[in-house]
Amino acid sequence: MTSPVACVHYRVPYADTDQMRVVYYANYLVYFERARNELLRVIGFPYRDIEARGYALPVLHAQIDYKGAARYDDDLEIRAWVGWVKPVRLRVDCTVSCGGVVLAEGHTVHAFVTLATLKPTRVPADIAACLGAAGGTTA
Amino acid sequence: MTSPVACVHYRVPYADTDQMRVVYYANYLVYFERARNELLRVIGFPYRDIEARGYALPVLHAQIDYKGAARYDDDLEIRAWVGWVKPVRLRVDCTVSCGGVVLAEGHTVHAFVTLATLKPTRVPADIAACLGAAGGTTA
Amino acid sequence: MTSPVACVHYRVPYADTDQMRVVYYANYLVYFERARNELLRVIGFPYRDIEARGYALPVLHAQIDYKGAARYDDDLEIRAWVGWVKPVRLRVDCTVSCGGVVLAEGHTVHAFVTLATLKPTRVPADIAACLGAAGGTTA
Amino acid sequence: MTSPVACVHYRVPYADTDQMRVVYYANYLVYFERARNELLRVIGFPYRDIEARGYALPVLHAQIDYKGAARYDDDLEIRAWVGWVKPVRLRVDCTVSCGGVVLAEGHTVHAFVTLATLKPTRVPADIAACLGAAGGTTA
Repeated sequence: MTSPVACVHYRVPYADTDQMRVVYYANYLVYFERARNELLRVIGFPYRDIEARGYALPVLHAQIDYKGAARYDDDLEIRAWVGWVKPVRLRVDCTVSCGGVVLAEGHTVHAFVTLATLKPTRVPADIAACLGAAGGTTA
Repeated sequence: MTSPVACVHYRVPYADTDQMRVVYYANYLVYFERARNELLRVIGFPYRDIEARGYALPVLHAQIDYKGAARYDDDLEIRAWVGWVKPVRLRVDCTVSCGGVVLAEGHTVHAFVTLATLKPTRVPADIAACLGAAGGTTA
Repeated sequence: MTSPVACVHYRVPYADTDQMRVVYYANYLVYFERARNELLRVIGFPYRDIEARGYALPVLHAQIDYKGAARYDDDLEIRAWVGWVKPVRLRVDCTVSCGGVVLAEGHTVHAFVTLATLKPTRVPADIAACLGAAGGTTA
Repeated sequence: MTSPVACVHYRVPYADTDQMRVVYYANYLVYFERARNELLRVIGFPYRDIEARGYALPVLHAQIDYKGAARYDDDLEIRAWVGWVKPVRLRVDCTVSCGGVVLAEGHTVHAFVTLATLKPTRVPADIAACLGAAGGTTA
């Protein structure tokens, strides 16, 4: 079974560049978020709904390897897929490409928490099932 | 009586620049916010406290005139003062300077609202008194 | 003759929100830029090409009226069109809407400059012709 | 010999928060940059001067562990120090704290490149000496 990979296109605005004439490094974490939002939508749990149900997915860890430079007006392709799922954690892997060339890759690890308290909680069974089916292994 | 003018210093990071090698234009609105926060602190109502009391000051209007360019590593001086106060509105004026030269000036107009509903409400008397004393005319 | 209006769709990421649960006010200037980029592309002069020819369009003035609140995951529609064109200046008008409701409107005024020096220069005839045809009056 | 640790204070604006009422995760990479700039200044090579000499330090890798949440109006303390120096690479370690509690820690790895071409080049001897003295091992 193949896991779903979400893909969003994104046109780089001037806002995202810096004086080295490339996209500033922190913006890639926003790019990762754009694809992650789409991934959750694709697997049936838009983040908006996760919050509406009283949960949140704050980031515990993020890392990126920069392999090339995105530039102003580039039409980027940002991809995200589930790395793994554990009872209270989730890893999402991402790449940012332009014209078929990977410019950055990395991942984020998220805690599954109750929105009101930001305390860890088990992923509800229906969401866990979707995430697990999305390619992760639920422990 | 002279009105209080809040002043904050801010060192420009690479993050704020764009490929024209100057600070990207939207960042000046963040600079304005930094000085506005300090202004509210100076006059005795830190925005954190305003929210804690159940109010908010969303922006209704913002405008900026750009007269020069802030650059990476510049040590900016950002000033803010109360333009005027009306029963449910507040105007804050701002300048951004470097080395005594004004690079941008503008203002924001804020509604006074109830945080829970974002509906307009009259400025509470004690806050109005402070803002009025801060140089605005309360109508 | 009708003037071209550029329109881009944009999905609001968590990154753009603030703790009032709405899009932070400075981000609308980035939204304006997204539509402006598309407008220049539509009328035949992508900003990338304008820079490649040695020109730039720094912002002299920006203003926004906020009429509603964009929120996380909203699918925004951002529109831009030429307000007017003068020998060395250009005004672009913009709106940000969601589901047919205008959330913000405003405009930016740009100088036409030489990229190397950031000094004002006349808009080259071919670009002026396109901009003029795009609904502006060239003086 | 103790290595220099740069420390900058930073007041969190509303701009940096998101609707979870905490600082959005990508902003920590900007915080790291603020302390890194100060570190380079402290050891005698402000980044502005590094660029003026025709070099640049683009980021190859970045990672962060999030241990707590920075909030609006927090007075953060951001620290940076040299992790290691190699002939064409540099690692900088960072922490973000509030009131003595570490909220995030991580590091960035930078290439030493020629600004004009963004191609790797050896760190010039005088800069390498400063960086080495700053606690890194030059290989």
